[in-house]
Amino acid sequence: MSDDTLHPPSNERGQADTAELLEEVREEGFSLSDQRIRDILDALYEEDVEVLRTLLYDLSDADIAELFGKVNNEERAHFFEKFNDIVSPYVYWHLDSELRDEILSALPASSVAQIISELDSDDALDLILDLDPVFQKNILKHLSVKNRTALEEGLSYPEDSAGRLMQREYVAIPQFWTVGKTIDYLRAAEDEIPDDFYGLIVVDPYYHVKGEIPLNKLVRAKRSEKINDITLEDIHLIPATTDQEEVAHLFRREGIGSAPVVDEEGRLVGVITIDDVLDVIDEEAGEDILKMAGVEEGDMYRAVLDTSYSRSRWLAVNLVTAFMAAAVVSMFGATIEKVVALAALMPIVAGMGGNAGTQALAVAVRAIAMKELSDTNAVRAIMKEGLVGLINGCLFALLVGFIAAWWFENNILGLVIAMAMVINLISAGLFGAGIPIVLNRYGQDPAISSSIFLTTITDCVGFFAFLGLATLFLG
Amino acid sequence: MSDDTLHPPSNERGQADTAELLEEVREEGFSLSDQRIRDILDALYEEDVEVLRTLLYDLSDADIAELFGKVNNEERAHFFEKFNDIVSPYVYWHLDSELRDEILSALPASSVAQIISELDSDDALDLILDLDPVFQKNILKHLSVKNRTALEEGLSYPEDSAGRLMQREYVAIPQFWTVGKTIDYLRAAEDEIPDDFYGLIVVDPYYHVKGEIPLNKLVRAKRSEKINDITLEDIHLIPATTDQEEVAHLFRREGIGSAPVVDEEGRLVGVITIDDVLDVIDEEAGEDILKMAGVEEGDMYRAVLDTSYSRSRWLAVNLVTAFMAAAVVSMFGATIEKVVALAALMPIVAGMGGNAGTQALAVAVRAIAMKELSDTNAVRAIMKEGLVGLINGCLFALLVGFIAAWWFENNILGLVIAMAMVINLISAGLFGAGIPIVLNRYGQDPAISSSIFLTTITDCVGFFAFLGLATLFLG
Repeated sequence: MSDDTLHPPSNERGQADTAELLEEVREEGFSLSDQRIRDILDALYEEDVEVLRTLLYDLSDADIAELFGKVNNEERAHFFEKFNDIVSPYVYWHLDSELRDEILSALPASSVAQIISELDSDDALDLILDLDPVFQKNILKHLSVKNRTALEEGLSYPEDSAGRLMQREYVAIPQFWTVGKTIDYLRAAEDEIPDDFYGLIVVDPYYHVKGEIPLNKLVRAKRSEKINDITLEDIHLIPATTDQEEVAHLFRREGIGSAPVVDEEGRLVGVITIDDVLDVIDEEAGEDILKMAGVEEGDMYRAVLDTSYSRSRWLAVNLVTAFMAAAVVSMFGATIEKVVALAALMPIVAGMGGNAGTQALAVAVRAIAMKELSDTNAVRAIMKEGLVGLINGCLFALLVGFIAAWWFENNILGLVIAMAMVINLISAGLFGAGIPIVLNRYGQDPAISSSIFLTTITDCVGFFAFLGLATLFLG
Repeated sequence: MSDDTLHPPSNERGQADTAELLEEVREEGFSLSDQRIRDILDALYEEDVEVLRTLLYDLSDADIAELFGKVNNEERAHFFEKFNDIVSPYVYWHLDSELRDEILSALPASSVAQIISELDSDDALDLILDLDPVFQKNILKHLSVKNRTALEEGLSYPEDSAGRLMQREYVAIPQFWTVGKTIDYLRAAEDEIPDDFYGLIVVDPYYHVKGEIPLNKLVRAKRSEKINDITLEDIHLIPATTDQEEVAHLFRREGIGSAPVVDEEGRLVGVITIDDVLDVIDEEAGEDILKMAGVEEGDMYRAVLDTSYSRSRWLAVNLVTAFMAAAVVSMFGATIEKVVALAALMPIVAGMGGNAGTQALAVAVRAIAMKELSDTNAVRAIMKEGLVGLINGCLFALLVGFIAAWWFENNILGLVIAMAMVINLISAGLFGAGIPIVLNRYGQDPAISSSIFLTTITDCVGFFAFLGLATLFLG
């Protein structure tokens, strides 16, 4: 990193590098390109170690993790066998958790302990969190007392809590110091304080948090100034048991870069920085998309049988609701036998209701996740969806009614499907917004089961309204 | 902020505050509670200005924005009329963009210019981005030359690009300075440099980026050290035209806190920090959930008619595919007339296909967004989904086949629905993964139209397979 001369070589190199880098980013983005992966795999198959070393040389840990995520199991095993030395501890950390657990579980506990001991406390915790509890204990046995204690403490906090998210490495200073003394301490205590930190936490003798000092304030202060005088007291304390979603909400809302975590007595135990929150937001947002579709996190890296099994549960629940809808249809068998066009048209009524309901559902689920929707505006939100359902119901009733009447040359059939469409779109709107709101109110996850309830309702209401009205007017 | 004595009063106050704060966070999280909003609205209706001022006194800008997002239009207008002074420029910035545009558009251009001139350049850009172009120009006219130039430059970058995201406020220093000179500069140039900054960018005389110095390195360095010697050269340059999704990917991938943005010649033009990226990730993840359901961003805050109109387009497209499915069903009218049980069972086949396909679709959309899925593993991902479809298809074929045979006392009907189920779940898996992959490959958004294509296929294949096989074996 250091350089004896001032401008020369690094300057020229820099220029050429920059042009090349910009070109690369424009073409490929910041990912590992598929072309590069192909080249690496070709070299692997040809066992051309020389070329491979060149190709792997300038890859970052994240690159190598991406490579391992995209190649198949055999190729990955091949890499681990031949190029074990390029797999740094942070490569494991970058891997998708499902894939990582699979790889780590195959290693001896002592090797995993070795990997873990080279990571920061919060990253180490990430790594062993989802491993088998027995294996976890074995790994802990191989760690130094200090590392083991830190991890055990982390594991003692509830899942997805601030205590699991926080770093135990931070810089805390007493309020009665001066700026000069603080800077001298930072220079002298290089071994005790973390490599990276963005601010100082000011504490009293009982480790109660008094405030924070961003580094840019410290740099600009005079050596004689008192810490107490430059401390920002407007801080956001996070109780260690706070749910990570709530933590993400705090950061997003207040635009802060880091916040101290405290125990039940208000004593400082760690610090959460915005980069930890980035992972949480990614995770939670991704979870919602997957949950609404009935898939578990990590599905992408699971083996075929595991995937099939985990998805089959959702499909089984859906099957029950599908049979409920079928039961509704079968009540009207006689009418369908008489007017067979009903069989062709009934999926339209149910399907349009399902789609309109899903629109309302997605908006409500997202608004709840972003804390934009709570008791205050819940009734208004549901009423709005009912109105939107009424308006679009009338619009599509007209459209579908005319098409149906013309297609099957039956005006009453057109009238019947139009009425059913209005009824189903209103109920789709009301329930699409209402179901996640009610689930959330009673402490349930609004994303996970809303869509099952919703399609049950839009199918049953749609079929019942359409076939029931048809029985009345056409039967 | 400053305090003459060292420990005393702030200490005791601090203790009580902490206990209270922790209690509050545990009960309410970091949001404005519904109870508080109710109290505020009650005071507003009773026109009790005294109580209102007390209730509004300690709210942050984010709190007030949350309040405005949750009350209805009349109540909000009331607030703006009576308590205009509590609405700071950053309250506008915190508001949902749809709601904000509505409020700003009702103000005179000069007032908006006033609001904007008090924000950081990137936040100011956020604020006027989606306003009507004519109104935008009017606002720009009311700004100082410096502010106008900054905004016009920002607007000149493509939508959703790094250039729009970046801050123009940063601290750049020449490589030949010493640590001492740098610190003296930071102290002296207080007016020229931003209030908050997390690191220094080291540049050559042509403003080409040479590296970065995190503040914690600067604080710990000796005054006599050369800047060149403590510069980290392993930096990630972002071209100003890079898409914001790509920028988010870089931050997520490399775990960095900030990165310099450069123009086409590689000259420094701004800096992107991780908090800007937080917003992008939130936005993109939210967009995917909404897009998959066919809703536009900001839907929650739109008026009923606007909402109905914007959603009707998606429903109209769905209607076309619904009629295609109806056409498939109507081909088999004669068979349904003979075996009316088919009408009751056919939604089961189509529905299970739709659900299984949506599972595969959500996994693929999410994996593409996270850059875990590209050419290298595309074929493998599709084949896996086909296999999962085969396995779950067989499982549910068995189940549904037996139930159908028993329900309608018709073994051949059970066999027919079983075969149709296997066919439809395999095709659901293949297309569920395949459609977003192909869309992405040809530069289309994989989230937005995938589900339309998918349900068209699962409906048509499901109905055709089931009713076709029924015609063969039961017709």
